Amino acid sequence: MSLPASDLTKAPDQRTAMDLGPVLPETAEVRDGHLFVGGVDLVELAREQGTALYVFDEAHLRHRMEAYVDAFHGLYPESDVIYASKAFLNKAVVRIAHEKGLCLDVSGGGELACALSVGYPADRVFMHGNNKTPRELEEAISAGVGRIVVDSFDELARVSRIAGEHGIVQEIYLRITPGVEADTHEYIKTGCEDSKFGFTMKDDLALRAVGRALETPHVHLAGLHCHIGSQIFKLDPFAEAAAVMVGFMDRIRSEYGATLSELDLGGGLGIAYLADDEPASIQEFAQMTCGAVKDACEARDFPLPRLLVEPGRSLVANAGMTLYTVGTIKELPGIRTFVAIDGGMSDNIRTALYHADYEPVIANKADQPRTQIVTLCGKHCESGDAVVLDMPLQEAEVDDIVCVFGTGAYNQTMASNYNGQPRPGVVFVCDGQAKLVTRRETYEDLYARDL
Amino acid sequence: MSLPASDLTKAPDQRTAMDLGPVLPETAEVRDGHLFVGGVDLVELAREQGTALYVFDEAHLRHRMEAYVDAFHGLYPESDVIYASKAFLNKAVVRIAHEKGLCLDVSGGGELACALSVGYPADRVFMHGNNKTPRELEEAISAGVGRIVVDSFDELARVSRIAGEHGIVQEIYLRITPGVEADTHEYIKTGCEDSKFGFTMKDDLALRAVGRALETPHVHLAGLHCHIGSQIFKLDPFAEAAAVMVGFMDRIRSEYGATLSELDLGGGLGIAYLADDEPASIQEFAQMTCGAVKDACEARDFPLPRLLVEPGRSLVANAGMTLYTVGTIKELPGIRTFVAIDGGMSDNIRTALYHADYEPVIANKADQPRTQIVTLCGKHCESGDAVVLDMPLQEAEVDDIVCVFGTGAYNQTMASNYNGQPRPGVVFVCDGQAKLVTRRETYEDLYARDL
Repeated sequence: MSLPASDLTKAPDQRTAMDLGPVLPETAEVRDGHLFVGGVDLVELAREQGTALYVFDEAHLRHRMEAYVDAFHGLYPESDVIYASKAFLNKAVVRIAHEKGLCLDVSGGGELACALSVGYPADRVFMHGNNKTPRELEEAISAGVGRIVVDSFDELARVSRIAGEHGIVQEIYLRITPGVEADTHEYIKTGCEDSKFGFTMKDDLALRAVGRALETPHVHLAGLHCHIGSQIFKLDPFAEAAAVMVGFMDRIRSEYGATLSELDLGGGLGIAYLADDEPASIQEFAQMTCGAVKDACEARDFPLPRLLVEPGRSLVANAGMTLYTVGTIKELPGIRTFVAIDGGMSDNIRTALYHADYEPVIANKADQPRTQIVTLCGKHCESGDAVVLDMPLQEAEVDDIVCVFGTGAYNQTMASNYNGQPRPGVVFVCDGQAKLVTRRETYEDLYARDL
Repeated sequence: MSLPASDLTKAPDQRTAMDLGPVLPETAEVRDGHLFVGGVDLVELAREQGTALYVFDEAHLRHRMEAYVDAFHGLYPESDVIYASKAFLNKAVVRIAHEKGLCLDVSGGGELACALSVGYPADRVFMHGNNKTPRELEEAISAGVGRIVVDSFDELARVSRIAGEHGIVQEIYLRITPGVEADTHEYIKTGCEDSKFGFTMKDDLALRAVGRALETPHVHLAGLHCHIGSQIFKLDPFAEAAAVMVGFMDRIRSEYGATLSELDLGGGLGIAYLADDEPASIQEFAQMTCGAVKDACEARDFPLPRLLVEPGRSLVANAGMTLYTVGTIKELPGIRTFVAIDGGMSDNIRTALYHADYEPVIANKADQPRTQIVTLCGKHCESGDAVVLDMPLQEAEVDDIVCVFGTGAYNQTMASNYNGQPRPGVVFVCDGQAKLVTRRETYEDLYARDL
């Protein structure tokens, strides 16, 4: 068997596109059977731009950014929302994040270069990564990034050396693994002990790291960072992590007499990939984390630190969708129905990597019920190449335009050229206008580096 | 847990680099503790070119190609070896394949464009894919590709229409799923019934497809294709598939009076990823497949068809290796030791995708025994980001150069820019010379398509 066996008892759900609630971008509507987003007919857009195509609902994206900033500022004035650019990155989204007052999380020199190329202020950039190269640290320090989140003793020494060469004191955080378990896929759990990231609190390793950082020249330990995982639905682990981190800051105060003034709780708020998913709202997430930090600080008489959170997926995933054209359909009676699209694991590796779930509709039949269960397979020479496994879809025909919702995060940034597939363009739709913000790759692009 | 739990009982194997037998490229040697390939010091090469870096032993690659061609021509004169370019593709490898007399398998317009850009003759190109787009078919037919391997009824009609528009008769194969199970990873098994590929023999679907192809204008059914999977160690399924296919060709002769004259058995010969792996040799593979075809034809009094095979991985995997620099090391007592390198799932997705195994060595300590068990983790912001899980390695230190063997297939072609990581350059080493054949990506390249 090449894919997980199809569940032949699964029933179509009869829902039409507009019944899919939480997975829809906010401006989704249906006119004359066609799916519109941002006032743009996605069927026409697909035919004009070609497929596969990444489409983003710009209003949805902007409103999610506003909702995060408003929720945190409302509850906790000394706070910042940091966009985790690894989820989706191009120049257009950096410009919007800047406009909306978000800081930026970059996890390497490439992401930093994108930010700087559009004039994003370096002092609002947070540099992440478990193994930043010396070159990347040099680039970050030269550019004047606001905070470097230091992940290891090796890196602490490296940052100190490079900052010293530049004659500056670099503001840093230490990344701490708080030992909190979140209920999510094993690949994206990051807060527990068996992690390549940061300093574990076990055996006081993290405490020793803080001691080392406090005495290391050319760096100033401004605060701490933790990240317990991604795509988290239950909020309790965030509160637990916040309490653990404040407790640790209290311990640092008593051990070293140092009162750290910033706490970055990372990202991880889950989003709806399926119509029946019920992720917490941004407001609930803000209440839980701000409340937990305030409670923990009050209990320990610890001054409220500047609070930071790093949403990525929860800002962009439901703003984004992917359009494909149906190329062929294979009904294998008693096995499964394959609907083959003109993309696949090259533009969406999450399904092969995590068995991720997505809700698909046929954009030109958006008002029809989804009366069959299909596997949307890609065009790549690999049996595991599928974008959607066993989900309801309207009756598919060749040349239909399929829209897969919720692909705004970790699709574009993880895309490949497997099988010589050019990576899709990115279009932002808003107020009836479609703006191509990243052009599709050409065949010439693919082999331009060959000498 | 973020990765499969580490096996803490696993013992280091004390082997040095040169003890790793089948995973080594053929010119590997150790001089003064440094690993050399193609007469080039990989430690110096890494420092000069930067890491991560894909390196290929050009002599190994050429000799594997020669061995395939010689083995098949020796046993079965009317045969051709087709290089499956999805495994590893750039202009340099296409030139070598052409020089060595191989045909070329492309699975999309991008791979075809690469071949044509270096003057590879189109009539020696085989066009694959379960869902070639109309544009790709147009490109293939315009270019005059030798064979199009038709995968569905929809595609048969499309090829006929486009060939008709060009006023030609296109030579085609039909892809058949013979229902043969190979012993390999579920993602890369492709010969069984639950497959997006081709026409199943079940319920005579394949037979009806042949009937349809025979009466379809503007196409000529030259033969059949099958592919039972990848990374196959036991040769019996190849013989079984060959017998099934010849039997099917015999049935076609009796049903339709058509004697097909070409049989493409696909690829799938396994290679050594681990030092203890014992894959069959090219010669054994050739004997098994040529013998099975001859036997089946003799038994049925069927004229010997032109025989084709499509090796990819077995030509390039062990010719290739990836060099990395160690950035930091984290020993988590009782959990695992992480050695962090300056690459990861962006240049090698196979470990995250399939839990693939690789043998690593430290290139600057190549004559030392591998005295510790480590996980080589990448620099990406994801816990599942590892290149090597729980394998022996020499005692690692920061700035060591790690060489991971056997990465020549499905690493470069599946690479991404996740976390803004520029894709590595590709260097061919031979006779003491290092030729950069694909340059490393720059930061500018990454966002050049943003408008």
